[in-house]
Amino acid sequence: MSKIVTGCLIIIGNEILSGRTQDTNLQHLATALNDVGVRLVHARVIPDVEETIVTTVNECRQTYDHVFTTGGIGPTHDDITADCIAMAFGVELYMHPEIVEILERREAPPEVMESRLRMARVPEGSVLIENPTSGPHGFQIENVYVMAGVPMVMQAMVSTLTKERLNGGDPVRSRSIGAYLSEGQVAVQLGQIQDLHPEVDLGSYPFYRQEGYGTNLVMRGTDEAELDVMLEEVKAMIVGFGAEPFDD
Amino acid sequence: MSKIVTGCLIIIGNEILSGRTQDTNLQHLATALNDVGVRLVHARVIPDVEETIVTTVNECRQTYDHVFTTGGIGPTHDDITADCIAMAFGVELYMHPEIVEILERREAPPEVMESRLRMARVPEGSVLIENPTSGPHGFQIENVYVMAGVPMVMQAMVSTLTKERLNGGDPVRSRSIGAYLSEGQVAVQLGQIQDLHPEVDLGSYPFYRQEGYGTNLVMRGTDEAELDVMLEEVKAMIVGFGAEPFDD
Repeated sequence: MSKIVTGCLIIIGNEILSGRTQDTNLQHLATALNDVGVRLVHARVIPDVEETIVTTVNECRQTYDHVFTTGGIGPTHDDITADCIAMAFGVELYMHPEIVEILERREAPPEVMESRLRMARVPEGSVLIENPTSGPHGFQIENVYVMAGVPMVMQAMVSTLTKERLNGGDPVRSRSIGAYLSEGQVAVQLGQIQDLHPEVDLGSYPFYRQEGYGTNLVMRGTDEAELDVMLEEVKAMIVGFGAEPFDD
Repeated sequence: MSKIVTGCLIIIGNEILSGRTQDTNLQHLATALNDVGVRLVHARVIPDVEETIVTTVNECRQTYDHVFTTGGIGPTHDDITADCIAMAFGVELYMHPEIVEILERREAPPEVMESRLRMARVPEGSVLIENPTSGPHGFQIENVYVMAGVPMVMQAMVSTLTKERLNGGDPVRSRSIGAYLSEGQVAVQLGQIQDLHPEVDLGSYPFYRQEGYGTNLVMRGTDEAELDVMLEEVKAMIVGFGAEPFDD
Protein backbone atom coordinates (compact mmCIF):
# COMPACT_ATOMS: atom_id res chain seq x y z
CA MET A 1 0.00 0.00 0.00
CA SER A 2 1.46 3.34 -1.05
CA LYS A 3 1.71 6.21 1.41
CA ILE A 4 -1.13 8.69 1.29
CA VAL A 5 -0.19 12.36 1.19
CA THR A 6 -3.12 14.56 2.17
CA GLY A 7 -4.07 18.04 1.07
CA CYS A 8 -6.50 20.65 2.37
CA LEU A 9 -7.78 23.71 0.52
CA ILE A 10 -8.83 26.89 2.29
CA ILE A 11 -10.80 29.17 -0.01
CA ILE A 12 -10.69 32.69 1.41
CA GLY A 13 -13.31 35.05 0.08
CA ASN A 14 -16.63 36.65 0.85
CA GLU A 15 -17.47 36.54 -2.86
CA ILE A 16 -17.72 32.74 -2.80
CA LEU A 17 -19.84 32.62 0.39
CA SER A 18 -22.17 35.35 -0.88
CA GLY A 19 -22.94 33.38 -4.04
CA ARG A 20 -21.57 36.12 -6.26
CA THR A 21 -18.74 34.00 -7.63
CA GLN A 22 -18.78 30.31 -8.51
CA ASP A 23 -15.60 28.71 -7.18
CA THR A 24 -13.71 26.59 -9.67
CA ASN A 25 -10.37 26.51 -7.87
CA LEU A 26 -11.30 23.46 -5.80
CA GLN A 27 -11.94 21.28 -8.82
CA HIS A 28 -8.80 22.50 -10.55
CA LEU A 29 -6.58 21.89 -7.54
CA ALA A 30 -8.13 18.47 -6.83
CA THR A 31 -7.49 17.32 -10.38
CA ALA A 32 -3.93 18.65 -10.43
CA LEU A 33 -3.15 17.01 -7.08
CA ASN A 34 -4.28 13.59 -8.35
CA ASP A 35 -1.44 13.70 -10.87
CA VAL A 36 1.22 14.53 -8.32
CA GLY A 37 0.04 11.94 -5.79
CA VAL A 38 -1.63 14.20 -3.24
CA ARG A 39 -5.23 13.56 -2.17
CA LEU A 40 -7.41 16.54 -1.44
CA VAL A 41 -9.32 15.30 1.60
CA HIS A 42 -10.74 18.50 3.04
CA ALA A 43 -11.73 21.98 1.95
CA ARG A 44 -13.13 25.03 3.69
CA VAL A 45 -14.60 28.26 2.46
CA ILE A 46 -14.14 31.12 4.92
CA PRO A 47 -14.72 34.88 4.89
CA ASP A 48 -12.11 37.67 4.83
CA VAL A 49 -12.02 37.82 8.64
CA GLU A 50 -8.66 37.89 10.38
CA GLU A 51 -9.42 35.69 13.36
CA THR A 52 -11.17 33.10 11.20
CA ILE A 53 -8.28 32.89 8.73
CA VAL A 54 -5.63 32.59 11.45
CA THR A 55 -7.52 29.92 13.38
CA THR A 56 -8.40 27.93 10.28
CA VAL A 57 -4.85 27.93 8.94
CA ASN A 58 -3.43 26.82 12.27
CA GLU A 59 -5.99 24.06 12.66
CA CYS A 60 -5.55 22.72 9.14
CA ARG A 61 -1.76 22.89 8.90
CA GLN A 62 -1.50 20.61 11.93
CA THR A 63 -3.96 18.10 10.47
CA TYR A 64 -2.99 17.74 6.79
CA ASP A 65 0.31 17.23 4.99
CA HIS A 66 -0.24 20.26 2.77
CA VAL A 67 -2.56 23.23 3.10
CA PHE A 68 -3.35 25.38 0.06
CA THR A 69 -5.05 28.75 0.26
CA THR A 70 -6.62 30.79 -2.53
CA GLY A 71 -7.69 34.40 -2.38
CA GLY A 72 -6.97 37.58 -0.48
CA ILE A 73 -3.48 38.40 -1.75
CA GLY A 74 -4.33 41.48 -3.83
CA PRO A 75 -3.66 45.15 -3.02
CA THR A 76 -6.94 46.27 -1.37
CA HIS A 77 -8.24 46.65 2.16
CA ASP A 78 -9.87 43.22 2.18
CA ASP A 79 -6.69 41.42 1.05
CA ILE A 80 -5.45 40.26 4.42
CA THR A 81 -4.27 36.72 3.74
CA ALA A 82 -0.51 37.43 3.95
CA ASP A 83 -0.98 39.28 7.25
CA CYS A 84 -3.05 36.41 8.64
CA ILE A 85 -0.57 33.72 7.56
CA ALA A 86 2.25 35.65 9.24
CA MET A 87 0.16 35.89 12.42
CA ALA A 88 -0.64 32.17 12.26
CA PHE A 89 3.08 31.38 12.17
CA GLY A 90 4.05 34.12 14.61
CA VAL A 91 6.45 35.80 12.19
CA GLU A 92 6.77 39.23 10.55
CA LEU A 93 6.09 40.18 6.94
CA TYR A 94 8.86 41.63 4.83
CA MET A 95 9.05 43.06 1.31
CA HIS A 96 10.38 40.36 -0.98
CA PRO A 97 12.84 41.98 -3.44
CA GLU A 98 11.90 39.69 -6.36
CA ILE A 99 8.22 40.64 -6.07
CA VAL A 100 9.05 44.32 -5.56
CA GLU A 101 11.05 44.22 -8.78
CA ILE A 102 8.09 42.75 -10.70
CA LEU A 103 5.66 45.31 -9.29
CA GLU A 104 7.95 48.26 -10.03
CA ARG A 105 8.32 47.29 -13.68
CA ARG A 106 5.03 48.98 -14.39
CA GLU A 107 5.07 52.68 -13.47
CA ALA A 108 2.39 54.13 -11.25
CA PRO A 109 1.73 57.21 -9.10
CA PRO A 110 3.21 56.86 -5.58
CA GLU A 111 -0.17 56.24 -3.93
CA VAL A 112 -1.01 53.45 -6.38
CA MET A 113 2.47 51.92 -6.13
CA GLU A 114 2.16 51.87 -2.35
CA SER A 115 -1.04 49.84 -2.60
CA ARG A 116 0.46 47.51 -5.18
CA LEU A 117 3.53 46.91 -3.05
CA ARG A 118 1.27 45.30 -0.45
CA MET A 119 1.46 42.31 -2.76
CA ALA A 120 5.24 42.05 -2.23
CA ARG A 121 4.85 41.31 1.48
CA VAL A 122 5.56 37.71 2.45
CA PRO A 123 6.10 36.13 5.88
CA GLU A 124 9.68 35.57 7.06
CA GLY A 125 10.77 32.04 6.24
CA SER A 126 8.71 31.81 3.05
CA VAL A 127 9.82 30.55 -0.31
CA LEU A 128 8.11 31.87 -3.41
CA ILE A 129 5.53 30.13 -5.58
CA GLU A 130 6.28 31.15 -9.14
CA ASN A 131 3.59 33.00 -11.07
CA PRO A 132 3.90 32.15 -14.78
CA THR A 133 1.41 34.91 -15.64
CA SER A 134 4.27 37.34 -14.78
CA GLY A 135 2.30 38.94 -11.95
CA PRO A 136 3.41 38.87 -8.30
CA HIS A 137 4.33 35.50 -6.79
CA GLY A 138 2.55 33.42 -4.20
CA PHE A 139 4.50 32.00 -1.29
CA GLN A 140 4.98 28.85 0.72
CA ILE A 141 5.71 28.81 4.42
CA GLU A 142 6.32 25.34 5.85
CA ASN A 143 3.40 23.22 4.56
CA VAL A 144 1.12 26.15 3.66
CA TYR A 145 0.90 27.30 0.02
CA VAL A 146 -0.63 30.74 -0.48
CA MET A 147 -2.00 31.44 -3.95
CA ALA A 148 -4.15 33.93 -5.80
CA GLY A 149 -7.93 33.60 -6.02
CA VAL A 150 -8.33 34.60 -9.67
CA PRO A 151 -8.59 31.21 -11.43
CA MET A 152 -6.20 32.04 -14.28
CA VAL A 153 -3.48 33.09 -11.85
CA MET A 154 -4.22 30.32 -9.35
CA GLN A 155 -3.98 27.70 -12.10
CA ALA A 156 -0.65 29.09 -13.27
CA MET A 157 0.70 28.90 -9.73
CA VAL A 158 -0.58 25.34 -9.23
CA SER A 159 1.25 24.28 -12.39
CA THR A 160 4.55 25.01 -10.62
CA LEU A 161 3.82 22.71 -7.66
CA THR A 162 5.59 19.54 -8.71
CA LYS A 163 5.40 16.05 -7.27
CA GLU A 164 8.93 16.58 -5.94
CA ARG A 165 8.04 19.81 -4.18
CA LEU A 166 4.93 18.24 -2.64
CA ASN A 167 6.67 14.94 -1.89
CA GLY A 168 3.70 13.23 -3.53
CA GLY A 169 2.87 9.53 -3.52
CA ASP A 170 1.62 7.45 -6.42
CA PRO A 171 -0.71 9.33 -8.78
CA VAL A 172 -4.41 8.76 -8.12
CA ARG A 173 -6.12 7.27 -11.16
CA SER A 174 -9.75 6.59 -11.92
CA ARG A 175 -11.99 4.42 -14.04
CA SER A 176 -15.54 5.41 -14.79
CA ILE A 177 -18.52 3.78 -16.46
CA GLY A 178 -22.22 4.63 -16.80
CA ALA A 179 -25.45 2.65 -17.15
CA TYR A 180 -29.17 3.32 -17.31
CA LEU A 181 -29.74 1.58 -14.00
CA SER A 182 -30.85 3.20 -10.76
CA GLU A 183 -28.59 3.37 -7.75
CA GLY A 184 -31.11 1.21 -5.93
CA GLN A 185 -30.75 -1.55 -8.51
CA VAL A 186 -26.99 -1.75 -8.26
CA ALA A 187 -26.60 -0.97 -4.56
CA VAL A 188 -26.15 -4.48 -3.16
CA GLN A 189 -23.74 -5.79 -5.79
CA LEU A 190 -21.82 -2.53 -5.74
CA GLY A 191 -21.27 -2.93 -2.01
CA GLN A 192 -19.96 -6.45 -2.65
CA ILE A 193 -17.50 -5.22 -5.28
CA GLN A 194 -16.35 -2.45 -2.93
CA ASP A 195 -15.73 -5.02 -0.18
CA LEU A 196 -13.46 -7.00 -2.52
CA HIS A 197 -11.28 -3.92 -3.14
CA PRO A 198 -10.97 -1.95 0.09
CA GLU A 199 -8.05 0.11 -1.26
CA VAL A 200 -10.14 1.49 -4.11
CA ASP A 201 -12.81 4.11 -3.61
CA LEU A 202 -15.97 3.08 -5.50
CA GLY A 203 -18.61 5.79 -5.85
CA SER A 204 -22.00 5.88 -7.55
CA TYR A 205 -23.52 9.09 -8.91
CA PRO A 206 -27.08 9.23 -10.18
CA PHE A 207 -27.93 11.34 -13.21
CA TYR A 208 -31.11 12.41 -14.96
CA ARG A 209 -31.14 12.88 -18.72
CA GLN A 210 -33.73 13.04 -21.44
CA GLU A 211 -33.02 9.38 -22.17
CA GLY A 212 -33.83 8.46 -18.58
CA TYR A 213 -32.12 8.21 -15.25
CA GLY A 214 -28.97 6.27 -14.65
CA THR A 215 -25.86 5.99 -12.55
CA ASN A 216 -22.20 6.67 -13.13
CA LEU A 217 -19.81 4.37 -11.31
CA VAL A 218 -16.37 5.68 -10.50
CA MET A 219 -13.36 3.82 -9.12
CA ARG A 220 -10.36 5.72 -7.75
CA GLY A 221 -7.05 4.36 -6.55
CA THR A 222 -3.34 4.12 -7.23
CA ASP A 223 -3.11 0.53 -8.53
CA GLU A 224 -3.95 0.65 -12.23
CA ALA A 225 -4.12 -3.15 -12.59
CA GLU A 226 -6.62 -3.40 -9.74
CA LEU A 227 -8.68 -0.58 -11.22
CA ASP A 228 -8.85 -2.47 -14.52
CA VAL A 229 -9.98 -5.68 -12.79
CA MET A 230 -12.62 -3.76 -10.86
CA LEU A 231 -13.86 -2.01 -13.97
CA GLU A 232 -14.46 -5.41 -15.59
CA GLU A 233 -16.37 -6.58 -12.52
CA VAL A 234 -18.57 -3.48 -12.62
CA LYS A 235 -19.17 -3.92 -16.35
CA ALA A 236 -20.15 -7.56 -15.78
CA MET A 237 -22.58 -6.45 -13.09
CA ILE A 238 -24.19 -3.95 -15.46
CA VAL A 239 -24.53 -6.56 -18.22
CA GLY A 240 -25.95 -8.99 -15.65
CA PHE A 241 -28.79 -6.51 -15.07
CA GLY A 242 -29.50 -6.53 -18.83
CA ALA A 243 -28.15 -3.00 -19.34
CA GLU A 244 -25.39 -1.72 -21.56
CA PRO A 245 -22.36 -0.07 -19.97
CA PHE A 246 -21.26 3.17 -21.64
CA ASP A 247 -18.30 5.49 -21.22
CA ASP A 248 -19.00 8.05 -18.54
CA MET B 1 -28.46 47.01 13.07
CA SER B 2 -30.44 43.92 12.14
CA LYS B 3 -29.65 40.57 13.70
CA ILE B 4 -27.38 38.34 11.67
CA VAL B 5 -28.48 34.75 11.21
CA THR B 6 -25.57 32.54 10.17
CA GLY B 7 -25.48 29.47 7.97
CA CYS B 8 -22.87 26.78 7.34
CA LEU B 9 -22.83 24.30 4.47
CA ILE B 10 -21.24 20.86 4.73
CA ILE B 11 -20.74 19.29 1.31
CA ILE B 12 -20.36 15.55 1.78
CA GLY B 13 -18.85 13.69 -1.13
CA ASN B 14 -15.63 12.18 -2.42
CA GLU B 15 -16.66 13.17 -5.95
CA ILE B 16 -16.19 16.86 -5.15
CA LEU B 17 -12.83 16.37 -3.42
CA SER B 18 -11.52 14.14 -6.22
CA GLY B 19 -12.24 16.83 -8.81
CA ARG B 20 -14.66 14.58 -10.69
CA THR B 21 -17.68 16.80 -10.03
CA GLN B 22 -17.84 20.60 -9.95
CA ASP B 23 -19.91 21.64 -6.95
CA THR B 24 -22.64 24.15 -7.68
CA ASN B 25 -24.68 23.64 -4.52
CA LEU B 26 -22.72 26.20 -2.52
CA GLN B 27 -23.47 29.03 -4.90
CA HIS B 28 -27.12 28.04 -5.16
CA LEU B 29 -27.58 27.84 -1.39
CA ALA B 30 -25.69 31.08 -0.76
CA THR B 31 -27.88 32.97 -3.21
CA ALA B 32 -31.10 31.48 -1.85
CA LEU B 33 -30.10 32.28 1.73
CA ASN B 34 -29.48 35.96 0.89
CA ASP B 35 -33.19 36.25 0.07
CA VAL B 36 -34.36 34.71 3.33
CA GLY B 37 -31.97 36.72 5.47
CA VAL B 38 -29.43 34.04 6.35
CA ARG B 39 -25.73 34.63 5.70
CA LEU B 40 -23.65 31.70 4.60
CA VAL B 41 -20.46 32.32 6.56
CA HIS B 42 -18.70 28.97 6.38
CA ALA B 43 -18.56 25.88 4.19
CA ARG B 44 -16.67 22.61 4.31
CA VAL B 45 -16.18 19.84 1.83
CA ILE B 46 -15.57 16.47 3.48
CA PRO B 47 -15.30 12.86 2.32
CA ASP B 48 -17.78 10.01 2.89
CA VAL B 49 -16.06 8.99 6.13
CA GLU B 50 -18.19 8.33 9.20
CA GLU B 51 -15.97 9.83 11.86
CA THR B 52 -15.31 12.94 9.78
CA ILE B 53 -19.00 13.54 9.11
CA VAL B 54 -20.02 13.06 12.75
CA THR B 55 -17.28 15.32 14.08
CA THR B 56 -17.86 18.01 11.49
CA VAL B 57 -21.62 18.11 12.04
CA ASN B 58 -21.21 18.34 15.81
CA GLU B 59 -18.63 21.09 15.55
CA CYS B 60 -20.61 23.16 13.07
CA ARG B 61 -24.05 22.85 14.63
CA GLN B 62 -22.71 24.36 17.83
CA THR B 63 -21.10 27.26 15.99
CA TYR B 64 -23.68 28.40 13.42
CA ASP B 65 -27.40 29.12 13.58
CA HIS B 66 -28.17 26.71 10.74
CA VAL B 67 -26.14 23.87 9.23
CA PHE B 68 -27.03 22.52 5.80
CA THR B 69 -25.63 19.30 4.39
CA THR B 70 -25.70 18.05 0.81
CA GLY B 71 -24.91 14.56 -0.40
CA GLY B 72 -24.82 11.00 0.85
CA ILE B 73 -28.53 10.28 1.24
CA GLY B 74 -28.94 7.82 -1.64
CA PRO B 75 -29.36 4.02 -1.46
CA THR B 76 -25.78 2.74 -1.86
CA HIS B 77 -22.94 1.65 0.44
CA ASP B 78 -21.32 5.09 0.45
CA ASP B 79 -24.55 6.88 1.41
CA ILE B 80 -23.97 7.19 5.13
CA THR B 81 -25.13 10.72 5.90
CA ALA B 82 -28.36 9.77 7.70
CA ASP B 83 -26.49 7.24 9.86
CA CYS B 84 -23.86 9.84 10.72
CA ILE B 85 -26.37 12.55 11.60
CA ALA B 86 -28.17 10.12 13.92
CA MET B 87 -24.83 9.29 15.57
CA ALA B 88 -23.98 12.98 15.89
CA PHE B 89 -27.25 13.56 17.79
CA GLY B 90 -27.11 10.26 19.69
CA VAL B 91 -30.48 9.06 18.39
CA GLU B 92 -31.73 6.08 16.36
CA LEU B 93 -32.90 6.01 12.77
CA TYR B 94 -36.42 4.92 11.93
CA MET B 95 -38.36 4.33 8.73
CA HIS B 96 -40.46 7.39 8.03
CA PRO B 97 -43.87 6.23 6.74
CA GLU B 98 -44.30 9.16 4.31
CA ILE B 99 -40.99 8.40 2.61
CA VAL B 100 -41.69 4.66 2.58
CA GLU B 101 -44.97 5.37 0.82
CA ILE B 102 -43.19 7.39 -1.88
CA LEU B 103 -40.52 4.76 -2.42
CA GLU B 104 -43.04 1.92 -2.65
CA ARG B 105 -45.06 3.67 -5.35
CA ARG B 106 -42.60 2.40 -7.92
CA GLU B 107 -42.40 -1.40 -7.96
CA ALA B 108 -39.08 -3.14 -7.64
CA PRO B 109 -37.68 -6.60 -6.83
CA PRO B 110 -37.28 -7.16 -3.06
CA GLU B 111 -33.50 -6.73 -3.10
CA VAL B 112 -33.76 -3.41 -4.95
CA MET B 113 -36.61 -2.20 -2.71
CA GLU B 114 -34.54 -2.99 0.35
CA SER B 115 -31.73 -0.76 -0.92
CA ARG B 116 -34.15 1.99 -1.89
CA LEU B 117 -35.80 1.90 1.52
CA ARG B 118 -32.49 2.98 3.04
CA MET B 119 -33.58 6.42 1.83
CA ALA B 120 -36.63 6.33 4.14
CA ARG B 121 -34.48 6.23 7.28
CA VAL B 122 -34.45 9.47 9.26
CA PRO B 123 -33.18 10.20 12.78
CA GLU B 124 -35.72 10.26 15.63
CA GLY B 125 -36.86 13.80 16.25
CA SER B 126 -36.58 14.88 12.61
CA VAL B 127 -39.07 16.81 10.57
CA LEU B 128 -39.13 16.33 6.82
CA ILE B 129 -37.79 18.68 4.15
CA GLU B 130 -40.18 18.47 1.23
CA ASN B 131 -38.84 17.25 -2.10
CA PRO B 132 -40.82 18.90 -4.91
CA THR B 133 -39.22 16.54 -7.46
CA SER B 134 -41.47 13.83 -5.92
CA GLY B 135 -38.48 11.76 -4.81
CA PRO B 136 -37.72 10.92 -1.16
CA HIS B 137 -37.61 13.80 1.33
CA GLY B 138 -34.70 15.32 3.15
CA PHE B 139 -34.95 15.94 6.87
CA GLN B 140 -34.23 18.54 9.53
CA ILE B 141 -33.09 17.69 13.03
CA GLU B 142 -32.76 20.69 15.32
CA ASN B 143 -30.67 23.21 13.32
CA VAL B 144 -29.28 20.69 10.81
CA TYR B 145 -30.89 20.41 7.35
CA VAL B 146 -29.98 17.28 5.41
CA MET B 147 -30.47 17.47 1.65
CA ALA B 148 -29.61 15.59 -1.52
CA GLY B 149 -26.37 16.19 -3.41
CA VAL B 150 -27.82 16.05 -6.93
CA PRO B 151 -28.21 19.77 -7.77
CA MET B 152 -31.73 19.47 -9.24
CA VAL B 153 -33.02 17.74 -6.12
CA MET B 154 -31.01 19.91 -3.74
CA GLN B 155 -32.38 23.07 -5.36
CA ALA B 156 -35.94 21.78 -5.09
CA MET B 157 -35.44 21.09 -1.39
CA VAL B 158 -33.86 24.51 -0.78
CA SER B 159 -36.91 26.17 -2.35
CA THR B 160 -39.01 24.86 0.56
CA LEU B 161 -36.83 26.46 3.26
CA THR B 162 -38.67 29.68 3.91
CA LYS B 163 -37.62 32.75 5.85
CA GLU B 164 -40.12 31.72 8.53
CA ARG B 165 -38.70 28.24 8.87
CA LEU B 166 -35.14 29.59 9.07
CA ASN B 167 -36.12 32.53 11.28
CA GLY B 168 -34.17 34.74 8.88
CA GLY B 169 -33.25 38.38 9.31
CA ASP B 170 -33.39 41.14 6.73
CA PRO B 171 -32.58 39.99 3.19
CA VAL B 172 -29.00 40.61 2.12
CA ARG B 173 -28.85 42.84 -0.96
CA SER B 174 -26.00 43.89 -3.17
CA ARG B 175 -24.90 46.61 -5.58
CA SER B 176 -22.20 46.04 -8.11
CA ILE B 177 -20.27 48.18 -10.57
CA GLY B 178 -17.24 47.64 -12.80
CA ALA B 179 -14.47 49.81 -14.19
CA TYR B 180 -11.31 49.41 -16.24
CA LEU B 181 -9.14 50.38 -13.30
CA SER B 182 -6.71 48.16 -11.45
CA GLU B 183 -7.27 47.18 -7.84
CA GLY B 184 -4.06 49.01 -7.00
CA GLN B 185 -5.44 52.25 -8.41
CA VAL B 186 -8.62 52.16 -6.35
CA ALA B 187 -7.25 50.55 -3.20
CA VAL B 188 -6.78 53.62 -1.00
CA GLN B 189 -10.08 55.35 -1.80
CA LEU B 190 -11.92 52.05 -1.59
CA GLY B 191 -10.61 51.57 1.91
CA GLN B 192 -11.87 55.06 2.81
CA ILE B 193 -15.34 54.32 1.46
CA GLN B 194 -15.40 51.02 3.37
CA ASP B 195 -14.48 52.86 6.59
CA LEU B 196 -17.46 55.19 6.12
CA HIS B 197 -19.85 52.20 5.93
CA PRO B 198 -18.72 49.54 8.38
CA GLU B 199 -22.05 47.67 8.15
CA VAL B 200 -21.66 47.09 4.43
CA ASP B 201 -19.21 44.60 3.00
CA LEU B 202 -17.28 46.20 0.12
CA GLY B 203 -15.28 43.80 -2.03
CA SER B 204 -13.12 44.31 -5.12
CA TYR B 205 -12.62 41.58 -7.72
CA PRO B 206 -10.10 41.94 -10.53
CA PHE B 207 -10.91 40.62 -13.99
CA TYR B 208 -8.99 40.16 -17.22
CA ARG B 209 -10.79 40.57 -20.54
CA GLN B 210 -9.79 41.17 -24.11
CA GLU B 211 -10.58 44.86 -23.56
CA GLY B 212 -8.10 44.98 -20.69
CA TYR B 213 -8.00 44.39 -16.98
CA GLY B 214 -10.38 45.93 -14.55
CA THR B 215 -12.09 45.56 -11.23
CA ASN B 216 -15.63 44.82 -10.14
CA LEU B 217 -16.74 46.49 -6.95
CA VAL B 218 -19.44 44.84 -4.89
CA MET B 219 -21.34 46.15 -1.88
CA ARG B 220 -23.42 43.82 0.29
CA GLY B 221 -25.67 44.69 3.17
CA THR B 222 -29.22 44.87 4.42
CA ASP B 223 -29.84 48.63 4.25
CA GLU B 224 -30.88 49.41 0.65
CA ALA B 225 -30.67 53.18 1.13
CA GLU B 226 -27.12 52.94 2.43
CA LEU B 227 -26.18 50.65 -0.45
CA ASP B 228 -27.48 53.24 -2.91
CA VAL B 229 -25.47 56.02 -1.26
CA MET B 230 -22.36 53.90 -1.30
CA LEU B 231 -22.85 52.97 -4.94
CA GLU B 232 -22.89 56.66 -5.82
CA GLU B 233 -19.69 57.21 -3.86
CA VAL B 234 -17.98 54.35 -5.69
CA LYS B 235 -19.22 55.67 -9.05
CA ALA B 236 -17.86 59.13 -8.20
CA MET B 237 -14.51 57.58 -7.32
CA ILE B 238 -14.38 55.78 -10.68
CA VAL B 239 -15.23 58.97 -12.57
CA GLY B 240 -12.63 60.81 -10.53
CA PHE B 241 -10.01 58.45 -11.94
CA GLY B 242 -11.15 59.36 -15.45
CA ALA B 243 -12.78 55.97 -16.05
CA GLU B 244 -16.34 55.08 -16.92
CA PRO B 245 -18.35 52.93 -14.50
CA PHE B 246 -20.31 50.09 -16.14
CA ASP B 247 -22.82 47.57 -14.90
CA ASP B 248 -21.08 44.50 -13.54
